[in-house]
Amino acid sequence: MTAAVEDQAAATESERLARAYLLGVAEPPAPHVLEFVGERGPVEAAARVRAGDCPSQVLRETAARRETLVAERDLEEAAKSGARLVVPEDREWPAWPLLSLAVAAGNGVKNIAAPLGLWVRGAISLAEAADRAVAVVGARLATDYGLHNAVEMAHALAIRQIPVFSGAALGIDAAAHRGALAGGGTTVAVLGCGLAHGYPVGNIDLLERIVAEGGAVVSEYGPGTTPARHRFLVRNRLIAGLTDGTLVVEAGIRSGARNTATTAGALGKVVMALPGPVHSGSSAGCHALIRDCRATLVTTVDEVLETVGRFDAANPVRETRHRPTDDLGPEAARIYDALLPRAGRTPEQVAAGAGVPVSRVRALLPALEIDGFAVRGETGWRQIVRRASR
Amino acid sequence: MTAAVEDQAAATESERLARAYLLGVAEPPAPHVLEFVGERGPVEAAARVRAGDCPSQVLRETAARRETLVAERDLEEAAKSGARLVVPEDREWPAWPLLSLAVAAGNGVKNIAAPLGLWVRGAISLAEAADRAVAVVGARLATDYGLHNAVEMAHALAIRQIPVFSGAALGIDAAAHRGALAGGGTTVAVLGCGLAHGYPVGNIDLLERIVAEGGAVVSEYGPGTTPARHRFLVRNRLIAGLTDGTLVVEAGIRSGARNTATTAGALGKVVMALPGPVHSGSSAGCHALIRDCRATLVTTVDEVLETVGRFDAANPVRETRHRPTDDLGPEAARIYDALLPRAGRTPEQVAAGAGVPVSRVRALLPALEIDGFAVRGETGWRQIVRRASR
Repeated sequence: MTAAVEDQAAATESERLARAYLLGVAEPPAPHVLEFVGERGPVEAAARVRAGDCPSQVLRETAARRETLVAERDLEEAAKSGARLVVPEDREWPAWPLLSLAVAAGNGVKNIAAPLGLWVRGAISLAEAADRAVAVVGARLATDYGLHNAVEMAHALAIRQIPVFSGAALGIDAAAHRGALAGGGTTVAVLGCGLAHGYPVGNIDLLERIVAEGGAVVSEYGPGTTPARHRFLVRNRLIAGLTDGTLVVEAGIRSGARNTATTAGALGKVVMALPGPVHSGSSAGCHALIRDCRATLVTTVDEVLETVGRFDAANPVRETRHRPTDDLGPEAARIYDALLPRAGRTPEQVAAGAGVPVSRVRALLPALEIDGFAVRGETGWRQIVRRASR
Repeated sequence: MTAAVEDQAAATESERLARAYLLGVAEPPAPHVLEFVGERGPVEAAARVRAGDCPSQVLRETAARRETLVAERDLEEAAKSGARLVVPEDREWPAWPLLSLAVAAGNGVKNIAAPLGLWVRGAISLAEAADRAVAVVGARLATDYGLHNAVEMAHALAIRQIPVFSGAALGIDAAAHRGALAGGGTTVAVLGCGLAHGYPVGNIDLLERIVAEGGAVVSEYGPGTTPARHRFLVRNRLIAGLTDGTLVVEAGIRSGARNTATTAGALGKVVMALPGPVHSGSSAGCHALIRDCRATLVTTVDEVLETVGRFDAANPVRETRHRPTDDLGPEAARIYDALLPRAGRTPEQVAAGAGVPVSRVRALLPALEIDGFAVRGETGWRQIVRRASR
């Protein structure tokens, strides 16, 4: 665990242990356990569940595994593989995006309860990754057309510094993770099995790369939990919940990606789909989502950003080149921008142009001169144009 | 002109001549001339326009050609080429579909006035052709993908006995007409120039085929009128107005087909578009229409029918094979259907199954026996299965 992520831990050890226990005994989603924890706090709730001293609905959600005490073992196993349990008491808990799950559950949407905690591997703060993110999902049985578009869209999002969430499945999901990595961006894989399970086998290397390159692998399930069909569907609510919008790149009429999209819609998140050739069964799910007005048709990353809305001004395309002016402080940069290369300006003119007090302008101009950004001439201060370098 | 279509003529010769004159002098759309005709009737309105004795706005719409007296010449030229002028006083005037133009104009939509009359070549009644119809339109610069889809969709509509309207342009329009002809259906070309002008040159044979195979070629413009860009845009309102819905098969971002779609929307008609590959500039107009919620995404003819709505039960797929039972009257057909091939039924049982009075069943069963559709056995009447033939 990196120092940066360690700073994010704020839960007590007993809170973390209690939540590890509850995650181990209650198959998600567990709305009544969640409610019970909300009322009693995780430590008391765990003790009462263990003792069988809890409401009957909580008992029902925990009956199968109440006496399976795997919390310590799970936490140890996680620590060994570099994973941690992130809980709502931690600073890195993505409380805001996950609030959508609580709101939807409160509105009567079924099987949508927030998670009791999340097992995470990767040096990035989960809250930061989920602050402004897009889910890029699709079918396992993808065409070249779909795979190409998944890579391209995820790459374009990564270049705009928008984390790409997906499910690490073969096909579109894996292509989305790879595209984000190729764009040098953050990508987060949310699994339907334990982090230590190593599934899907074909994507184990990909998961390692995601962690190595600053992303994260996340799961609600204890490290050794086996994959199961219902877990993928339950997992889909986290992909939808942790992001601002879900983009379905390619999906057949029965693809699980449509489930993620439908869930995203139920959570009030933005749902988008790429179109494809009319005869492509692999795009039929996308077309159905668009036709039924459950998804907005998008064809470019700019349309994705416009549709999601939150990103408009905040995420310009990241300059892959390093510009010398990147190292200037904010005031110095504004002063530099207010200078002209071919006409001298007085400090007063620069102050007016830069919106910086003239006293600061007078203090910083000589420093800019020393660093080779400005020059003093007969007609005033001029800019020295500095080229970008790799 | 066929007898069937001649029956449709109800206007007096002076009304027709007056409208031919007005069509010749007023460049469509001519809302003030239309209103003036509504107030005074075509004969008086034409006389007043000719004499210059009309409101200034009417004068303005007719100023350029008021003294160009081409009505007789146009009618003669039309008659020579087998065309006729259909006017609102005729029974075949498509009053109901064109009402949408008057309503939209009344709601302030610009350049949308109904036509003063329509020049028509083809033996079909215009009102009948426009009773339940779909416009299939798209760009001139079409891809193989678009052309293929245009043929396929028009063919499928034709098989379901739905007339296909289009603009006879090269590209998607021509493919739509061809697809409808291949499906044995009715297709109507609405031109932006006179019927005798022979434009576009590449589609003259197609226009002949449309007329020869029971469809029609229609124009608001006098026989010799030359094509012009603004006339195609003005013509688009007729394609939209004469149909229940407009399907854009393939259109770039600046295609005139988008104009037809937008007009159809302004007329309250259904607008549909086919999706295509995300990178296809030739589908960009379709994608924009869908993305902006101005068109519904469709991928199959069934989705077209579902979207337009009016056709659901009325237009079953036409059987291309002739079945012997097609020649039975409605009661005899129901009696035939109520028989079983391998078990005898009493006339009372057949009557109950067919919903036909038992007296009629008793009368018709012997007739069915004579024609080889039924046989009387020891256990009652049985069906003789008759195969379909070409």
